[in-house]
Amino acid sequence: VKSAESHRITLWDTTTKLTLPVKYATLSIYELLRGLPCGSLVEITGYWDNYGFYIEKVEVLHRPVLEDLACIDELPRDPVEFTRRYYLYVRNSSYAKVVKTYSLVLQFIRSLLVKNEYLELPTVIIGHTSDPGLRGASKAVIELYGGLYEVQSSVIMYKQLYASVFGRIFYTARNLRIEPPENVKTGRHLVEFTQVDIESAEDREEDLIRLAEIIIYKTIKYILSKHSNLLDNSRISTLDRQVTKPPYPRLTYEEAIQEARRIGYNVKFGEELSFEAEKALAQKYETPIWILHFPTRARGFYYIEDHKRSGFNVDYNLLLPGGYGEVLDGGCREYRYEKLLDKIKQHGEDSSKYSWFLELTRAGLIRPTCGWAVSVIKVGWGCLGFIWAVVGFINP
Amino acid sequence: VKSAESHRITLWDTTTKLTLPVKYATLSIYELLRGLPCGSLVEITGYWDNYGFYIEKVEVLHRPVLEDLACIDELPRDPVEFTRRYYLYVRNSSYAKVVKTYSLVLQFIRSLLVKNEYLELPTVIIGHTSDPGLRGASKAVIELYGGLYEVQSSVIMYKQLYASVFGRIFYTARNLRIEPPENVKTGRHLVEFTQVDIESAEDREEDLIRLAEIIIYKTIKYILSKHSNLLDNSRISTLDRQVTKPPYPRLTYEEAIQEARRIGYNVKFGEELSFEAEKALAQKYETPIWILHFPTRARGFYYIEDHKRSGFNVDYNLLLPGGYGEVLDGGCREYRYEKLLDKIKQHGEDSSKYSWFLELTRAGLIRPTCGWAVSVIKVGWGCLGFIWAVVGFINP
Repeated sequence: VKSAESHRITLWDTTTKLTLPVKYATLSIYELLRGLPCGSLVEITGYWDNYGFYIEKVEVLHRPVLEDLACIDELPRDPVEFTRRYYLYVRNSSYAKVVKTYSLVLQFIRSLLVKNEYLELPTVIIGHTSDPGLRGASKAVIELYGGLYEVQSSVIMYKQLYASVFGRIFYTARNLRIEPPENVKTGRHLVEFTQVDIESAEDREEDLIRLAEIIIYKTIKYILSKHSNLLDNSRISTLDRQVTKPPYPRLTYEEAIQEARRIGYNVKFGEELSFEAEKALAQKYETPIWILHFPTRARGFYYIEDHKRSGFNVDYNLLLPGGYGEVLDGGCREYRYEKLLDKIKQHGEDSSKYSWFLELTRAGLIRPTCGWAVSVIKVGWGCLGFIWAVVGFINP
Repeated sequence: VKSAESHRITLWDTTTKLTLPVKYATLSIYELLRGLPCGSLVEITGYWDNYGFYIEKVEVLHRPVLEDLACIDELPRDPVEFTRRYYLYVRNSSYAKVVKTYSLVLQFIRSLLVKNEYLELPTVIIGHTSDPGLRGASKAVIELYGGLYEVQSSVIMYKQLYASVFGRIFYTARNLRIEPPENVKTGRHLVEFTQVDIESAEDREEDLIRLAEIIIYKTIKYILSKHSNLLDNSRISTLDRQVTKPPYPRLTYEEAIQEARRIGYNVKFGEELSFEAEKALAQKYETPIWILHFPTRARGFYYIEDHKRSGFNVDYNLLLPGGYGEVLDGGCREYRYEKLLDKIKQHGEDSSKYSWFLELTRAGLIRPTCGWAVSVIKVGWGCLGFIWAVVGFINP
């Protein structure tokens, strides 16, 4: 209950504010409602006629103790305080819009994949080692029935296995990476995040690039055309301008580092582009852009080396415009036992961690596959926190 | 490659078996293909004309080392061996059908909820304590930035929070419970499982019961009418007979224990029904049945006590017929600070574990809500393992 004046009661209904024009109500009802603290929960029973709402009964279901918390519509400035007690602030109206955008984006992307005959598999929570861990993040390990398992940080090898069986598959992956605190502050790499993670044994690099472009393009156009009420006006016009029809420009890794050097970022050949360099590159372009064919030693061992160009992978990352940076990364995968074993060793990894997957490749059960993962949302624990990825791009 | 005879090459294409009628192929191609071990990966390039397939090129992409594993279509009898190395057996054709059923069931249930204006939220992986843990299972705990968090075993309090904000919400929850090994052997309670977990601040017990019935009914009819190719013939006729139009019969807890005693199960008043008693009850009925209004002390502290019948909850569980047992449980929730605190203490729980949620109820930020969770699939780690829940009922 926000306020109660004669003939008008304003109710605070969590996300909407409802004003009831009241026809008949005794003075005692107004007195009762006016006396309640902000955030009280009341059940009002009655009926509408042509003149207004006729109240028959008012029941106070709950009277809050900390009334100052109940009607907050501002977020705390301190991100640590916010993360620790985010659950107090989830009624904030801009957050509500982001959560709705998330839900719509996820359902829309899934429906496009299902139309393209991709089969959705159950999100993996714990499993065998599937990824060496990227950019300094560590993993959560738990013991189970005498064995050690990881809380999933990447489903890469699961994707290879299931695409080998079903042809085209995807996960609504929820991954957990314990990022160093300095990464968390960037808002870019977070503890829990949702990726739509696809893999196909029936498509090659070019098919996967085209599918990614069309999905990103259609998803953003869908939100713009059907749910623009979730966006600020300034964001609507920017998205409309930036997200042009695919195909999007493609730079090779070598072209990208030359470009990055030209605008002042000193990227060493053979290393991944830094966040800042990626952001600056994405700032320069007014559309999404691809960076293709990274050096083999700069990226995970599971990418396949281009047989026409030794030292470079068959892989592809998509950057979003306006300084937003990488939102999708993909590539084709090594599936041959001997080559995979060599690459694991060259990357300084312990091959025994991947014995389950090596057993599969050794038996010839892994087909050549390609895939990608698009980050839909990155959040702090619980559900909400900082938000980034596709949803953050659409609705920052 | 399965076999290569003159004019006919049978290829083993993971889930399907493809026979190519070959028009022209040199003897050397047959010799090559015949010499490959089962499970070899070959790329055959050519074209179709009116008479058959004309092979231009055959390239051997991979030659398996452990050929005996590559063409397995039987599952090991020992469940431990199967769980440990399930990844070798995922090509098994009956598994493939179960995985497809899962994907279809999940997408169908989600689409029905979206039509009913339920908002999907991101699956929680780690979070604050949300559930005391049921029936002897324990939880996986990890340390993060100096705090202890749980790998999610239930989203109950998150559901209450977000339904208070958004009205109607759901999760595609992937929960992890470390079950005692004797439970795992029953195939009933497993480590990772998918639940569609809904909660509403805009509906009451009766609405939630009706929504559950119609979703279970429509989902099973959808698979029967559109995807019966995934099911055995005997299962099709059983499902057709057992899954009648709702509403389904309702027993109160008291009626259910009387019934269980009559058929030989000694259930003490005030305790949950054992797996066996539930199964036997579900065996007796030829349709799904509800059990309503469990004793307050037999169930989680978060259920609300019926204000008309002290000592009993407002809650509801759905059992599936044919001895299948419980597949959905739900109820309305306690949202009042003082009552919730009392119940946590009465259940012998440490209230400090729930301080985050108590803070919310104390501030009046939790509305009265009701919900339910339907188990879609229960699996071993990685993706596949033993399968139960709705999908197991449809496609055992």
